[in-house]
Amino acid sequence: MMDHIRIGIVGYGNLGRGVRKAINQNPDIELKAIFTRREVGAVAENDPFMVHISKIADYKDEIDVMILCGGSATDLAVQGPEIAQLFNTVDSFDTHAKIPEYFEMMDKTAKEAGKLSVISVGWDPGLFSLNRLLGNVVLPEGTDYTFWGKGISQGHSDAIRRVAGVKDGKQYTVPVESALEKVRSGSNPQLTTREKHLRVCYVVPEEGADLKAIEETIKNMPNYFSDYDTEVNFITKEELEKNHAGMPHGGFVIRTGVTGDGTRQKMEFSLALDSNPEFTASILVAYARAIYKMSKEGKTGACTVFDVPFGYLSPKTAAELRKEML
Amino acid sequence: MMDHIRIGIVGYGNLGRGVRKAINQNPDIELKAIFTRREVGAVAENDPFMVHISKIADYKDEIDVMILCGGSATDLAVQGPEIAQLFNTVDSFDTHAKIPEYFEMMDKTAKEAGKLSVISVGWDPGLFSLNRLLGNVVLPEGTDYTFWGKGISQGHSDAIRRVAGVKDGKQYTVPVESALEKVRSGSNPQLTTREKHLRVCYVVPEEGADLKAIEETIKNMPNYFSDYDTEVNFITKEELEKNHAGMPHGGFVIRTGVTGDGTRQKMEFSLALDSNPEFTASILVAYARAIYKMSKEGKTGACTVFDVPFGYLSPKTAAELRKEML
Repeated sequence: MMDHIRIGIVGYGNLGRGVRKAINQNPDIELKAIFTRREVGAVAENDPFMVHISKIADYKDEIDVMILCGGSATDLAVQGPEIAQLFNTVDSFDTHAKIPEYFEMMDKTAKEAGKLSVISVGWDPGLFSLNRLLGNVVLPEGTDYTFWGKGISQGHSDAIRRVAGVKDGKQYTVPVESALEKVRSGSNPQLTTREKHLRVCYVVPEEGADLKAIEETIKNMPNYFSDYDTEVNFITKEELEKNHAGMPHGGFVIRTGVTGDGTRQKMEFSLALDSNPEFTASILVAYARAIYKMSKEGKTGACTVFDVPFGYLSPKTAAELRKEML
Repeated sequence: MMDHIRIGIVGYGNLGRGVRKAINQNPDIELKAIFTRREVGAVAENDPFMVHISKIADYKDEIDVMILCGGSATDLAVQGPEIAQLFNTVDSFDTHAKIPEYFEMMDKTAKEAGKLSVISVGWDPGLFSLNRLLGNVVLPEGTDYTFWGKGISQGHSDAIRRVAGVKDGKQYTVPVESALEKVRSGSNPQLTTREKHLRVCYVVPEEGADLKAIEETIKNMPNYFSDYDTEVNFITKEELEKNHAGMPHGGFVIRTGVTGDGTRQKMEFSLALDSNPEFTASILVAYARAIYKMSKEGKTGACTVFDVPFGYLSPKTAAELRKEML
């Protein structure tokens, strides 16, 4: 009889909702409570799982792993260490420059509490990081390339919506096919983020707006668009809602290198996701399983995807995995 | 100051030679000796690393990890447990049906000896297994597909060379592009190995041989070709040597699945290798580093790629990896 792993979700935006759905796909994992900072009735009436975050400590003995779905690095930087004092945690902290600092803070807190926390889980950081590491160790003489997309960039979509005359809009980051091909050819090109990605905008203008002016403003916007090849498409509100309501994303990690006397070798990992938050959530749930097992074995402190053997991610035993999946 | 990891190679065919080259790409790893069953002078004159296998026990304190490059599962089934009594080991045992039995044998031997052995390392079993596992845990509602090639199949090449009138020949296993596309579309097709792969033969006929008869014999050969779409190309000895001397291989692991309410998600891992043995060798060397570290921490017995955290594969510290690669 397998242990049931009892999960708490902190934060109920797109990621938190995705975690709830992912838990439903995993029979060995059970949702215990969802913690929110908002008034409980306002989030979802009659949802028996909803609990105000002020009561989180009451669940100390009822939850094995807490999955932190705070909407931003700002949330996690505060919430992470607070919750790690009481629970094992999984989070998707993704402010790259602050990872070392956040790790130290989580490691200290979790160690003192006798808990285990895995930070920066998801697909980038996360699965993409694992593939970058694998590329580096297997092909030490080589170069790796990360491309993102095709996918919605929230920051760039927000920037479009701030332009005068724009009613609504979405921005896709799209990998440049010719750059991908150049990388795959093994020619080890030097490529900037700009050369690797195209920005494609779908814009709903206000009635009577000056389309030419909107297009120029977007294309020349510093930091966001001026350094990129940017495409602006005007569409109706209905088209935006019909064709661009999802949160697709994805990308590629490619490592090209040589072994022996210049023998060419190539490794490639890619994702094509119809929902970025649901996929990220599925990864968080798998790592919650791993953290539960590792914590049972007595491990404490903070760790990352680099420290978790893949076997721990699965509900199957090591013997089953060797027989069925090796 | 980093520890130098001292490696022994057992067996000096294509894989053993690849390991030697891979060690040269990793400054923290050092080749100590190469053990051969053949007469040492016959393998390579004046190669100071060559040692007859009968002397392997003399190296007990001089080698940290032994990489077993025996040419076949038959070699490993005998050599593995013998050598695991004295050394930490890495091997590429790939007779799938016998993995559980081999694991138990290696686990018992290594545990009793206080040593650590990682078995079935390479790309399949190995990196492909890791990606199959990852696909299963992240997308539990889904299907995974493994395609092999384009690459040389040694067994099928041998079969061609046994046909009357054939002087020499090579066989490539080639993934069927339309099957790959069907899988990538997310339609979850049911595909047999035959439907996924094409067999392409390059045949050098004896002078005056009946080409029609050779082609028919190959295409109708049971087990090897009769169940496949097989293409037979006649070429000269010179063309074979010029264009088909390498040992390329590769393949694809694709997982398509759904999250939430039928949201489609896709993960893909692929390899394109100009040298199968050199790439496999590079993986073995990275896992030798991991086994060295895990053994230092007191771990004993047998394990597989599912039990080794990726961080252990790298010469970098955990803090460096978090900073540079997460």
